[in-house]
Amino acid sequence: MGRKIVVIGGVAAGATAAAKARRTDESSEITVLEKGKYISYANCGLPYYTGGIIKPRKKILLHTPDTYGTRFNADVLVSTEATSINRSARTVTVRDRSGERDIPYDKLIIAVGGKTVIPPIRGIDKTPYFTMRTVDDADAVRKYIEKNKPKSAAVIGGGFIGVETAEAMMHCGIKTTVVEAKPEIMPNMPGIVAMNLREHMEKKGIGFKLGVFAQRVEKTVKNKIDISLSDGTLLKTDMLFLCAGVTPDTALARECGLEIGQTGGIAVDDTMRTSDRDIFAAGDVVEKLNRITGKKVLLPLAGPANREGRTAGYNAATDGDMKFPGIVGTSIVGFDGYCAGQAGLTYEQAVQAGLDADYVYTEDADIAEYYPGHTFIFMMTVFEKKTGRLLGCAASGEKGVDKRLDVASAALYSGLSVFDLEHLEFAYAPQFAKAKDNLNIAGFVASNKVRGTGYAVTPEEFAEARKKSRVQILDVRTAREHQDACVEGSVNIPVNDLRGRLNSLDKNTPVYVYCAVGFRGYLAVKMLRNSGFEAYNVSGGMETITRLQKIV
Amino acid sequence: MGRKIVVIGGVAAGATAAAKARRTDESSEITVLEKGKYISYANCGLPYYTGGIIKPRKKILLHTPDTYGTRFNADVLVSTEATSINRSARTVTVRDRSGERDIPYDKLIIAVGGKTVIPPIRGIDKTPYFTMRTVDDADAVRKYIEKNKPKSAAVIGGGFIGVETAEAMMHCGIKTTVVEAKPEIMPNMPGIVAMNLREHMEKKGIGFKLGVFAQRVEKTVKNKIDISLSDGTLLKTDMLFLCAGVTPDTALARECGLEIGQTGGIAVDDTMRTSDRDIFAAGDVVEKLNRITGKKVLLPLAGPANREGRTAGYNAATDGDMKFPGIVGTSIVGFDGYCAGQAGLTYEQAVQAGLDADYVYTEDADIAEYYPGHTFIFMMTVFEKKTGRLLGCAASGEKGVDKRLDVASAALYSGLSVFDLEHLEFAYAPQFAKAKDNLNIAGFVASNKVRGTGYAVTPEEFAEARKKSRVQILDVRTAREHQDACVEGSVNIPVNDLRGRLNSLDKNTPVYVYCAVGFRGYLAVKMLRNSGFEAYNVSGGMETITRLQKIV
Repeated sequence: MGRKIVVIGGVAAGATAAAKARRTDESSEITVLEKGKYISYANCGLPYYTGGIIKPRKKILLHTPDTYGTRFNADVLVSTEATSINRSARTVTVRDRSGERDIPYDKLIIAVGGKTVIPPIRGIDKTPYFTMRTVDDADAVRKYIEKNKPKSAAVIGGGFIGVETAEAMMHCGIKTTVVEAKPEIMPNMPGIVAMNLREHMEKKGIGFKLGVFAQRVEKTVKNKIDISLSDGTLLKTDMLFLCAGVTPDTALARECGLEIGQTGGIAVDDTMRTSDRDIFAAGDVVEKLNRITGKKVLLPLAGPANREGRTAGYNAATDGDMKFPGIVGTSIVGFDGYCAGQAGLTYEQAVQAGLDADYVYTEDADIAEYYPGHTFIFMMTVFEKKTGRLLGCAASGEKGVDKRLDVASAALYSGLSVFDLEHLEFAYAPQFAKAKDNLNIAGFVASNKVRGTGYAVTPEEFAEARKKSRVQILDVRTAREHQDACVEGSVNIPVNDLRGRLNSLDKNTPVYVYCAVGFRGYLAVKMLRNSGFEAYNVSGGMETITRLQKIV
Repeated sequence: MGRKIVVIGGVAAGATAAAKARRTDESSEITVLEKGKYISYANCGLPYYTGGIIKPRKKILLHTPDTYGTRFNADVLVSTEATSINRSARTVTVRDRSGERDIPYDKLIIAVGGKTVIPPIRGIDKTPYFTMRTVDDADAVRKYIEKNKPKSAAVIGGGFIGVETAEAMMHCGIKTTVVEAKPEIMPNMPGIVAMNLREHMEKKGIGFKLGVFAQRVEKTVKNKIDISLSDGTLLKTDMLFLCAGVTPDTALARECGLEIGQTGGIAVDDTMRTSDRDIFAAGDVVEKLNRITGKKVLLPLAGPANREGRTAGYNAATDGDMKFPGIVGTSIVGFDGYCAGQAGLTYEQAVQAGLDADYVYTEDADIAEYYPGHTFIFMMTVFEKKTGRLLGCAASGEKGVDKRLDVASAALYSGLSVFDLEHLEFAYAPQFAKAKDNLNIAGFVASNKVRGTGYAVTPEEFAEARKKSRVQILDVRTAREHQDACVEGSVNIPVNDLRGRLNSLDKNTPVYVYCAVGFRGYLAVKMLRNSGFEAYNVSGGMETITRLQKIV
């Protein structure tokens, strides 16, 4: 008889852990406990199944308990909830239809994931709402829509699941409003980057209530729900979704005395062992080491969950020391042909972690601009001010965003600097990329800033300088661009004319230069600096200035 | 008066060098010499302009000599050929319509690029042919097609430009045949990866003559050309393209005694200085340091050319020491919705460089398989046998190939190993990627091989083992998959049934297991090994076995 391995939780981390344990050791007795009816399903696909993009339904059920159990020779118990862990007896108490019983283990893996955050809204306990965590959740939404033909939906929370749920409702023909307490959607991304995504959603008919929160909900007549918002307005809806995030479901771990980290997740070492050597944990229930800051964080994402599960499964089966090296945090969210994402830290996160951070904005085409079908990617690149170490990169656009985030993610994993970004090679032909990729350009701009040769200032610094003292503001775009929209008080000298018109500028007053996205501004500033002016280039140009005006 | 900087060559490296020099120093006198009529044009876009994908024509002309000269305050001399360099007098002799003259320099940058290789074909000197290097070349092709309405074209050379030219001709409605001397197109990529691209091209109507070369060409009647091939056949065509690659155009450098490297490119240090401290060189004309092997190589690609130009321009303007850190070699080629590419070394290149290399094949979907529109990417990952250091990655597929190559490229730049590939994070939502990315999976398979826990063999090793001794061949796919196509002599036990049927296998004879792409085979091998069998998993499964059969 082999060792008894019990895995609590049968979705991402749990299913992977059990499979890896089986591949590692044929003789183990493996039991998977799953409180839901389904295991190893495509939980990231649920919003798309709900919206009718993924069909038929069986596609999201990657395995049945039977197929999984047969393939991995595991005892898969669904509709079976682990209610407590007895560490001295090494048993898990479970409850199913037939009652309670104890299951013995030699090694235990806790992979119960997160639980939906229920915001403190008055009346929520008496009001019907939907969530988007399980197959049952998604089925309930589809069934409700089919039966009741709702016309409107309100989504509380503008994060990943909120945005994806809004897309699903749009595909169902339901008018949807997203309520987000922060001033912009995607609260873990820079607002200036997430803004494009929200604007795209607005174009597609999604409504927004930003910077407000739901204070009270009430079911009125005939499945109607009234939501009282903190700005005093009332939002009436036919369906209410709670998408305010997840929190580690640590009840089991707490009750048996396992160490819980300061973040609220189960504390594990790099072998995924908890404070009990025979108990492992993986996935959304654990806290993770952030490789960039060296600090523990929560990061409820499928990728790390899978690889943590793999590590836990291997180590549980072997008493081994396979290591999970921590995360950098790379994520993306899409809405019907548009997306925004983040690799590593935002500027705010970097500052909070005590890092001396700086950033640049860049915007460039995703493929060669002379090739048909190019679109633009807006990017915010964060780095350590003195060393240039890359700390994070956020980006949004129609396409090619995932690629840049993935490369930035590999760069962050490797500890590269913005000087390295200058030299990364990209697979280039005009339909795929550019000879100078967006990340190369971000590298150029950031490196110049670190070297002190770029004279870039952030639009925020520009705004500050204008308030404090007299400055000259120079728009180096074409006359037509200047006419369309410009910064108040700016004079227009197109970059190609600047050399001949330097006399019209005052050498004793700083010149703040801007163009469309920053490149012509950079040329102009080099020209001005080389001619004795104190000149600065507004990072990201008019593009970023306009965005910031919308935020402020 | 500032220093005199003369740049020979006004396209990728040259145009970038002059622009960077100007941005760095406003006072320099910068002269750009370009023998063609155009500067800073989109040379990588020429096949797409020729095929009518990029239009209007002005899109490929990124700058006119005037706009460039004005913006960067440079003296741009087009239709001006540099004929010799006098290093002691520090002058360049140039020839234009008005005759010859000398132009003095303080710093010289040679960025003349490569020249088209003219293969030693009898009669080529008397036969009209087309190339695809310059705007004039592309214009000539378009004009010829418009005037003569050719029905067929023959492309000599199945590399990047050959494939792109074939696409251009397809878009022009011209029946095209590609002649490639190697057994497969894209001779710098593994045949097993390039194969898919060629098959895709065949489906689109492109003909191929592989493993043969043109021995003789002859113009016959009415613009018809006869090509006698080495296999004794005759290829009749209306248009002949020479796309057999480029070679560094080192005549100028040789004549003035600059050091030429063993590769045939100008030797430069990491500041892009030649053996003469005042003469820099950049782009296709120089040899580059391969960061993986530490050896010098040629790599005529736009990305490195641009960044070398930038380095040379800065250092020429400042006497500085900005460094170009070398290349890993990342490239891609597309053909109307399909592509193939390479980051780093192929297995053959690794072996030639004296590295103890190994490789694995993997094939996986580009996005979640349950999401509509997923396609498959075939991948060959090369690594150092003992350390697992990543050496290269080749991939082909309809989409998502560039992304994986770019991440592999960043991993190669950073010196990552296949163990690191296991842990790279990808921006994941089902429409963009998978929770376990293709590179993660390549990392898993390769790491298991290095650790000695995966028991993967290459299909080549499998073929070898079958020849040498008695083996059992086990197909663990479903009965239906087995019926469709299988390896001769294989028995079929679906992986989910294997545990119950172990008795039907002989424990004293090695078992070679295969499935569709390798994952079920891996599960089966772990099961068999754990039960005392000597079992091996054929890397890449039936997919790779079938490909290799086509090659052999």
